[in-house]
Amino acid sequence: MKLATLHTEQGPTVVSVTDHEGQLTFYDVRAFDDTLPPSLKGVLSLEDGLERACKAAKQAVEADRQITGTLCAPIPQPGKVICIGLNYRDHAEETGMAFPDEPVCFSKFTTSVTGPDQPIRIPEVAKEVDYEAELVVVIGKTCRNANLDNALEYVAGYMNGHDVSARDWQIGRPGGQWLLGKTPDTFAPIGPYLVTSDEIEDANNLSIKLTLNGEVMQNSCTDKFIFTIEEIVQFLSQFMTLEPGDIIFTGTPPGVGMARKPPVYLKPGDQVDVEIQGLGVLRNSVEAWN
Amino acid sequence: MKLATLHTEQGPTVVSVTDHEGQLTFYDVRAFDDTLPPSLKGVLSLEDGLERACKAAKQAVEADRQITGTLCAPIPQPGKVICIGLNYRDHAEETGMAFPDEPVCFSKFTTSVTGPDQPIRIPEVAKEVDYEAELVVVIGKTCRNANLDNALEYVAGYMNGHDVSARDWQIGRPGGQWLLGKTPDTFAPIGPYLVTSDEIEDANNLSIKLTLNGEVMQNSCTDKFIFTIEEIVQFLSQFMTLEPGDIIFTGTPPGVGMARKPPVYLKPGDQVDVEIQGLGVLRNSVEAWN
Repeated sequence: MKLATLHTEQGPTVVSVTDHEGQLTFYDVRAFDDTLPPSLKGVLSLEDGLERACKAAKQAVEADRQITGTLCAPIPQPGKVICIGLNYRDHAEETGMAFPDEPVCFSKFTTSVTGPDQPIRIPEVAKEVDYEAELVVVIGKTCRNANLDNALEYVAGYMNGHDVSARDWQIGRPGGQWLLGKTPDTFAPIGPYLVTSDEIEDANNLSIKLTLNGEVMQNSCTDKFIFTIEEIVQFLSQFMTLEPGDIIFTGTPPGVGMARKPPVYLKPGDQVDVEIQGLGVLRNSVEAWN
Repeated sequence: MKLATLHTEQGPTVVSVTDHEGQLTFYDVRAFDDTLPPSLKGVLSLEDGLERACKAAKQAVEADRQITGTLCAPIPQPGKVICIGLNYRDHAEETGMAFPDEPVCFSKFTTSVTGPDQPIRIPEVAKEVDYEAELVVVIGKTCRNANLDNALEYVAGYMNGHDVSARDWQIGRPGGQWLLGKTPDTFAPIGPYLVTSDEIEDANNLSIKLTLNGEVMQNSCTDKFIFTIEEIVQFLSQFMTLEPGDIIFTGTPPGVGMARKPPVYLKPGDQVDVEIQGLGVLRNSVEAWN
């Protein structure tokens, strides 16, 4: 099932989505189960919330109960935005870094999250802003000390994600922390919708592509992961409780702008599309934040 | 005014606090303004929320309208937990690091936040867990692109904070990111209460002390800050929108366990007190997370 968050005249609500070659139609899930909360995070926080939402979503599509509004990030306020770095074998080779022997973890703040068709806004301090297509994992159940056998049971589904990265603040700064380069407002577009796990045969084997103004810049497959989704969830859950609605960016394949000669950085007017197999297209324009 | 969050039989609520040499008494703020939300973050999110809460708090104390319950973190779920590293001149000297020429920023996830008298729980993966006393700034108003003259207007108040740090996961790992060492569950105790800015003459000049099992391990003053609170707020707000209830850990003075010979690390049964001038005492015990 494809689920999304729509801003309507009555406020935000959970909808189901059909996607016909990029033409999205939205259906009113809560018309068929009015006890569901209006947010996807709220739905996931209920013991049987996702199951009920999927049942109502199916009914809404069958009844053609359409609803209109403005699409926003499927989960506008995740409790955590966890990011994994250097997780594609072909990207690690591109950057000249050794393969890490454990997942490299960093984070973005929730204020970095934005939705499809929303602008990526470049703050005045950032001069070298790069793109990174990423598969995003959505946690569906509270999880601590998962093991490799049960880790995927905690995953509700998947989304496209764009790990926008100001290289001039990520790299070469005192303390060496990536946070400032990764967390400016709007630097974590996600969407357009969440695809539930049952619709994805193998999330560790999905084509992933990024185009900049129509030109293909990244084109790889999640089978190049150094750490699989199971391994990432198991690893993280040794340190922290993963909660419903938490999201995990799983790293980017090769082709990033800073590895090009000359480097390619985002500028106002650009359009970036992230497209992962089965997850639709996440499109964002770029503008200056004045 | 001292404000805190109390878990009562009716759920969490905002209370005012009097502190007589560590003897805390709680007063029912919302009995005098029942339109206030039950959380401090909710109070801060209202245009005039803090003003109204302080007025009701004063009335509650004057009327001796006491209330009982279990104290928890003043802000149990901050939108952001921002941390500044290497921010005391005397601590930078202790670690042998050069003074940074801009604030070193990292983060903890919200799941790391815990309250006074709650245990710090050491996960099995962490073997070298250190203590760090820190002054915590609480953001009171939405803030972007602050300047040095108005930065403090966005600060609602201050709290004691404890930046618990697993050195074996903070340092020497691939990618060099501190996140995993800093963000395990319970690694960010805060409290016992929020002291509003008007009660603190100069937050850049407060004594700060940490005792481990009664022995003084850190004893300094925030006048050793490399970056003042105004500078930190101004700097951060160039990158991200600071929101009501966001909290900023401002770095730790010298005396941390890893700089000692031999190193001192936290172990089950330990008791750690953080005491900053005017902010009461934040006490936490240590236990293993099994």
